[in-house]
Amino acid sequence: MTDALTTAERDTLIAPLLANGWTMVNGRDAIQKTYVFGNFVAAFGFMTQAAIWAEKLNHHPEWSNVYKTVDVTLITHDCDGLSVLDAKLGAKMDALAKG
Amino acid sequence: MTDALTTAERDTLIAPLLANGWTMVNGRDAIQKTYVFGNFVAAFGFMTQAAIWAEKLNHHPEWSNVYKTVDVTLITHDCDGLSVLDAKLGAKMDALAKG
Repeated sequence: MTDALTTAERDTLIAPLLANGWTMVNGRDAIQKTYVFGNFVAAFGFMTQAAIWAEKLNHHPEWSNVYKTVDVTLITHDCDGLSVLDAKLGAKMDALAKG
Repeated sequence: MTDALTTAERDTLIAPLLANGWTMVNGRDAIQKTYVFGNFVAAFGFMTQAAIWAEKLNHHPEWSNVYKTVDVTLITHDCDGLSVLDAKLGAKMDALAKG
């Protein structure tokens, strides 16, 4: 069981993501970001790297891809809200997208 | 420019997909299928193989993934409808999903 973040933890862990292009999802305690790459190979290359990290963390995104665009939603189904795993995976994805 | 399929071509190329789990999308001349695998690694492994084929065909899916489930929509944006490329990629995805 993964605990939902406390308010204090959100200030530390989620606020930096919200300052970096992530937004809260309407009606869900989840965060969303849209990445746009140069082409499909770059977009799917990002997904492949993120997929390996997701499996390592045992925490998987809800995501979609259309050509060079990747939409990611992060939430922890265990606690039906944001946990430390979403903060970790979100920060990792941002790092991978920078290359 | 890729031409939309004729009615006769649909009977030959799209009908077999519709008989194999693909369905027409409401309000779009597009086909959709949901694949369910054993786990995330299997689901993303399928996506990785399909991504390489998509790039080879220069024809890319609209798709999403949540853990072991992959939702695929195929349409040819050039003709805003189904073309031979959708038939090819759909059949290839079915073959890849079988392993």
